Order: sequence, then C-alpha cells, then structure tokens
Amino acid sequence: MKIDNDTPTATWSPDVLRRFAADFDPTLEKLLAKQTDIPTRLHEAMTYSLLAPGKRMRPYLTTRCCQLSGGTTDDAFAAAAAIECVHCFSLVHDDLPAMDDDDLRRGRPTTHKKFDEATAILVGDALLALAFEILATRSPKDADIGRMVQVLAESTGATGMIGGQAADLTGQEQPPSLKRTQYIHQRKTGHLFSAAARLGALAGNASDSAIDSMARFGLQLGLAFQIADDLLDLTATTEQMGKATSKDAVAGKQTYPACVGIEESQSAAKRASSEAIAALSTLGPDASDLQALARYAISRNY
Amino acid sequence: MKIDNDTPTATWSPDVLRRFAADFDPTLEKLLAKQTDIPTRLHEAMTYSLLAPGKRMRPYLTTRCCQLSGGTTDDAFAAAAAIECVHCFSLVHDDLPAMDDDDLRRGRPTTHKKFDEATAILVGDALLALAFEILATRSPKDADIGRMVQVLAESTGATGMIGGQAADLTGQEQPPSLKRTQYIHQRKTGHLFSAAARLGALAGNASDSAIDSMARFGLQLGLAFQIADDLLDLTATTEQMGKATSKDAVAGKQTYPACVGIEESQSAAKRASSEAIAALSTLGPDASDLQALARYAISRNY
Repeated sequence: MKIDNDTPTATWSPDVLRRFAADFDPTLEKLLAKQTDIPTRLHEAMTYSLLAPGKRMRPYLTTRCCQLSGGTTDDAFAAAAAIECVHCFSLVHDDLPAMDDDDLRRGRPTTHKKFDEATAILVGDALLALAFEILATRSPKDADIGRMVQVLAESTGATGMIGGQAADLTGQEQPPSLKRTQYIHQRKTGHLFSAAARLGALAGNASDSAIDSMARFGLQLGLAFQIADDLLDLTATTEQMGKATSKDAVAGKQTYPACVGIEESQSAAKRASSEAIAALSTLGPDASDLQALARYAISRNY
Repeated sequence: MKIDNDTPTATWSPDVLRRFAADFDPTLEKLLAKQTDIPTRLHEAMTYSLLAPGKRMRPYLTTRCCQLSGGTTDDAFAAAAAIECVHCFSLVHDDLPAMDDDDLRRGRPTTHKKFDEATAILVGDALLALAFEILATRSPKDADIGRMVQVLAESTGATGMIGGQAADLTGQEQPPSLKRTQYIHQRKTGHLFSAAARLGALAGNASDSAIDSMARFGLQLGLAFQIADDLLDLTATTEQMGKATSKDAVAGKQTYPACVGIEESQSAAKRASSEAIAALSTLGPDASDLQALARYAISRNY
C-alpha cells in the first residue's frame, strides 16, 4: 500500500484519494476478516459499515503526516485504520433514528436500515473499541502508544467529537450563533481531523514542533471541510453527496450559512483553508499535496 | 481510598463493597467533574449514569488484584475507573429501546428515560472513549499501557462483551442451547470480569503466571455471577434487583435455567464459583476475601 506522492502538485485530484483507498480498503478488510470470533451478523454489519465507499480523507491525512515525519505507509496503518474506525462509528450512530435519522449514507442504506437498530448501536460500539485495539496492537514498536491512545480518546470523547455531536443536538433548539457553530464544528469535525494528523506524526516519530504544525493543519482542514459541507447541504444533490441534503435548515442545525449567510461562509471556509496551508509552510515542498488538499476541501462538489 | 482487607475472612459481607464504593465513587466523581469542557447536558447525563449506585464489583476486583500483585489502591485507580466506565457504557446502551428496552436500572430511571435516547447513545459512546483516556493518562508510569489498552479493547469489543451482547440479541430468536448460553455469558460478563482482574494485575506489575491466575478467577467469577443473575431474574423482586425482573423468559433469552433448569443451573454456578476459588489457590491467604466473593456471587439475593 502506498500513496502516489512522488510528484506533489499544486492542484489536487480526487484520484489521489481513490488510489489511496484502493490500497487502504483491502488492508482494512483483511484486518477485519481475520477477526473470526465475532458473531456472524455483527461481523457482516461491521464490514458493511467500515468498508462502505468513503473518501478516506482522514486515514490519507494520517498516512501522509506519517510519511512527512519520516515514517512509512506501514508505520501509519494502525493509526489510519483506528481513525477510520472512529469516523465510521460516528457515522453509524449519527444516522440512528434517535439522532439524525438518516436512511442513506455513502450512497447506500445506513447500517440500521440495512440491518436493524440494535445491530447498528453495537456496530458503532464495536468499531470504537476496535480502533483502540488496533492502535494498541499494530502501531510501530517504538511508537508512544500511551500518547497515541490519549490523542485518539480525547479527540473522540466528550471533550471532542462526541461532545460536538451533543452540542449539535441541543443546538437545534437554539437560535443560530456563530460561537456555538464554531464550537460544534471544531469538536465534531476539527478534533478528529487534527487527531488524524497528530497520530500520523506520532506514528512517524515526528518532532514536537512538526506534530504541532500537522495538528493545526488538521484542525483547520477539518473546519474548512465542515463549512464546505454546510454549504453543500444547501446546494448539492443527494446523488452527488451519497446522503440526504437540505436537511440542516429543516432540522434547525447550527451551520455557518444559518449564522452568517452563504457569502461570509465561503470566506470563512477560505480563511480556514489558508490557515491550514500556512500551518504546513515550514515543512517544505513535500507537504504541497496536503496544501492542495486544503484547497480542494473548499472547492469540491461532493 | 483504601479497601479494608486487613482481616480477610472466609465469609463475605456486602459491606466490603459498600466501603470500597464509599471511597471509589467520590474519586470517580472528582475525575469527571474536572472535565469541564463537556456540554452541560452530556456532562450531567454521564455523571448520572456513571455515579448511579452500583455494586462496583468490577473495580473492586481490579483494585484487589492490583494489591495482591504488590500495587497500591492508587496504582489500580485508572484501571478500576476504566472498567467501571466500560461497564456503565454497556448498561446505558443495553437499556436502550432498540436493545433490552428497560426503564429502571440501579433503582432509578435508565439514562434514556431520565434524559433522552440520543443523549443515552452519546453517554455510552463518551464513557467508552473515557475509559481508554483514563487508562492511557492515569495508569502508573511503569505500567505497560499498550498491553492494558489491548486487554480492555479486546474484552470490550466484538470478540468480547459487545460480541456477547450481539449473540444475546440473535439468541432470542433461537431455541435454548447450553453452548450458545455459555458463549454469551463468557463474552457478555466473563470477559469483562476477567479484564478487570488482569488490568489490576497489570497495574500492579504482577508476574505472567499471577496475571493468568487472576484472569481465570475473573472469568469464572463472572460466569458464576451471570448464572446467579439468570436465577435471580426468575426469583427476585424488582425492588431487590433495582431493575425489572422476570424479563429473560418473556424475551426468550438464552439463560442457564432455560437450557438446563433451575437445579442444574445452581450446580453450574457452584462449579464456576469453585473454579474461581481454585484459580487463586497459589496466591495464599491474602486472596481469601476474593475467594469469599466468589462464594457470595452465587448466594446473594440482589
């Protein structure tokens, strides 16, 4: 499994992620297939949820940050797989009837629609536990496992992504507020993107300053990505997104467009993208593909 | 915080657990209170769920196994708290309408009844992430964090407790089978009891053979405890148990009494209890209180 980053360019192509996924997904699938002592239906539902066609932006970020730190793609695999497990767990639980109640995800029925609600709850739980199992058992021998587990747990938990999700739910009963929206976006999306970058850097034994740079890049990339998502929910079709759109406004969600309008949201996304690009300036031309990714995050149409 | 084990006796008193909880619970509450960057409602619901009056049998087991290994109560705290977080997460999710659909737990409304379903899902998720955060950040400096995270993740995940829960759900549509019941009980209860013991031993830097002994003790104690629970579901009152009873038969659950009848179930519980006691025979009189706990597990009436 390798990422085609021999010739980093200033323009980004989604093909880079597709090529990454073409190597990453089968490795992830093999890892899950090896876990034979799982009840059949749960195993099927975990595989269905984890191997659904996704962008794999987070594990790509992990892998590239590890490479930028002098590590290999193999060094990054555990952290990349753990991040994708956490991301998928969050999607499965977010889609539940009691949460966002979505029927479609990544162009297919959501886990609770394809299987059932109880199975979807257990799939999410199992993927979250699996993330930590992978991180603890498959990270490079010289990696600081304790610190990596801490980064993943804090960015996932009540002070991170799950806290953001909770604020997102209560935010639906409150008037639009930019401060609240920033709180939600930073936690719901920014923290996990930041963790993806930090875990890659840690797996590659980067210096503390390089870890900080990549963490800042991840946070701003996540923010840019989430504001773009807010905008796409208003403008893109269900076919483009692989999930229901125009739902945020109906649900009364805290979004950038709801708080500051479309034009200022576009400016905010650009600012986050620029800050992401600037965060990597000390890492030289090797980081130019990630900088291009930060530009792509706000120009994509799906 | 200390456990009164200066005078281990052959008879067990529930007061031992009550005294343990009187020290353990406030320490756990302080830990959660310190996490100030959590949305208010989520924080309240996490505290409500985690600090509900429980037996604290698992963290007690962790603490005693750490002490038997030469560690202190403080050395054991991270592992004990992590195990209780995982146990509570599993209760909150098991009680959800799509799962066991219970209104009462530990004598109080279940989390989704007291708050709401979405909050209960997030509370479970957050407690699971918190378990790993605590383990990674608060274990003794010289502990093997990677191994401890592995033990907790494997015993919790799809090959452990969550797998047992999945088998429990599908088992309701199948005829009673002792093999299936053993599979479910080992995973749903045995694995986490075993992990509680192993984590305590690891926190106390026990030898591999001592870790194995305590792990076997935990597994058999969990099995004895669960068979006794099956029997209590048939015979105890809601007031005694702090949760609804007589539900297993109605739900068509795989239980020991459903498979082999009450008398043989009592014998199986006694065998598991005896095997637990035998597993600690090499540890001498210091372990006699845990051996008494194994006897109590099958004689309790709540």
